[in-house]
Amino acid sequence: MDPAERIKASFSKQGLMGTLGATLGRVDIELRPSPAISQQHGFVHAGAISAIADTAAGYAALSLMPADTGVLTTEFKINLVAPAAGERIIARGRVVKAGRTLTLAQAEVFAVSDGQEKLIALLTATMMSIKGRDGIND
Amino acid sequence: MDPAERIKASFSKQGLMGTLGATLGRVDIELRPSPAISQQHGFVHAGAISAIADTAAGYAALSLMPADTGVLTTEFKINLVAPAAGERIIARGRVVKAGRTLTLAQAEVFAVSDGQEKLIALLTATMMSIKGRDGIND
Amino acid sequence: MDPAERIKASFSKQGLMGTLGATLGRVDIELRPSPAISQQHGFVHAGAISAIADTAAGYAALSLMPADTGVLTTEFKINLVAPAAGERIIARGRVVKAGRTLTLAQAEVFAVSDGQEKLIALLTATMMSIKGRDGIND
Amino acid sequence: MDPAERIKASFSKQGLMGTLGATLGRVDIELRPSPAISQQHGFVHAGAISAIADTAAGYAALSLMPADTGVLTTEFKINLVAPAAGERIIARGRVVKAGRTLTLAQAEVFAVSDGQEKLIALLTATMMSIKGRDGIND
Repeated sequence: MDPAERIKASFSKQGLMGTLGATLGRVDIELRPSPAISQQHGFVHAGAISAIADTAAGYAALSLMPADTGVLTTEFKINLVAPAAGERIIARGRVVKAGRTLTLAQAEVFAVSDGQEKLIALLTATMMSIKGRDGIND
Repeated sequence: MDPAERIKASFSKQGLMGTLGATLGRVDIELRPSPAISQQHGFVHAGAISAIADTAAGYAALSLMPADTGVLTTEFKINLVAPAAGERIIARGRVVKAGRTLTLAQAEVFAVSDGQEKLIALLTATMMSIKGRDGIND
Repeated sequence: MDPAERIKASFSKQGLMGTLGATLGRVDIELRPSPAISQQHGFVHAGAISAIADTAAGYAALSLMPADTGVLTTEFKINLVAPAAGERIIARGRVVKAGRTLTLAQAEVFAVSDGQEKLIALLTATMMSIKGRDGIND
Repeated sequence: MDPAERIKASFSKQGLMGTLGATLGRVDIELRPSPAISQQHGFVHAGAISAIADTAAGYAALSLMPADTGVLTTEFKINLVAPAAGERIIARGRVVKAGRTLTLAQAEVFAVSDGQEKLIALLTATMMSIKGRDGIND
């Protein structure tokens, strides 16, 4: 399976992404603000922002791992620099440093309104590659 | 409104908590693992864990803020120390240091199986108090 | 070598601790504020606070690792909740969750003045155990 | 005073930078590995790496703040992706998002050997602007 297909297949197994209404782009994950994913002030909840940012960073890491390897998040930090509102929210992941056991990945999250992108969050995450555990290969 | 009522009212406005099926206890937030909140290996998604941990920490912070003040998360870090699986997931928040503008709060997240609690995640968050912005008082 | 002796021996090899004037207590690391470790406003530099907090957390982790194992910090986050000033600064480390490869440790840092302790910083760190690399066994 | 002069003047007041032997470049901070700043395995201590990364990020933030404003670090996270060894260590800061109260800044840290730069650490920090406090204007 090529990496893009592998990530697509894995993404479809993440129930939370479906529940949030998140969709997978070529290299990004997208979310439409709605009351179902809000916090108390009506913005998109930091937990939903974290969910797509963590997923984008995780798949960026997985795309550089061998085919029989799974990926687990061991920790992440997210800075929320502006309220999450707009027509769409987009998370874009990239690998900062790939290692044998640990990979450092980053995701930037943007809110899109009237075709303008605005940075709303920055995540850095440590991803662990998992090998030889039953059922974990993505 | 007393602090507990205030947090209950605010929690009910968080659409994401309803979408995830999260419920508010006296001082904790609870989640039942299900495919709707999973990641690709069937564990509860780190984003859902983060969502309840961030919310528990945020309400711990809000409970110490004046009545006309709102709370916003500016950043958090979460360490995920064990896979999130079990009968129930519980996040418990507490304030480490309350400040005029910034409050440091922490949340521990436990998985419960057969009556045994196991630590699965630890979050530290910086919460900002918001005053005098329209519609933000929780 | 018993764990306390092992940590004492390892600490004495950390040149930075000597340069900063940091000393090892039974379970803590202490620093005396001075111009030599200041930032521009005269407080103790966040880097010096981080250095003793990271070291306290690292030795807490090492104390639970096998004798032939070394410890490396893979990441930490520190929240600085009050300016670092006073007669003494004390960092106290503890293990939150020990794992085979990764250990989550925490350190609280206090400023002491007139016998009163005040929390000034909280660190959480992921420590990695290192085995079978030349010269790394502490 | 122009921003570069202001940062130069402020840097010279940071006693820790002198103690570590750190020097200020045009937009970076440099360190020479030596036993005086080591951890127990002979690498540069994570605390010293953090000190120059935090300082580089802080001055990147300060360079965008008004002249009568000071800068304080409220929190940072650092991922250490490779052992800190080489001829020189260089930290480069940049602002991700400048805000009225809080600024998100980042620093990359590189080890230089034989003219080759290698990423060894990535820091993200929340910097707070301080106004109207005696003696804090840098």
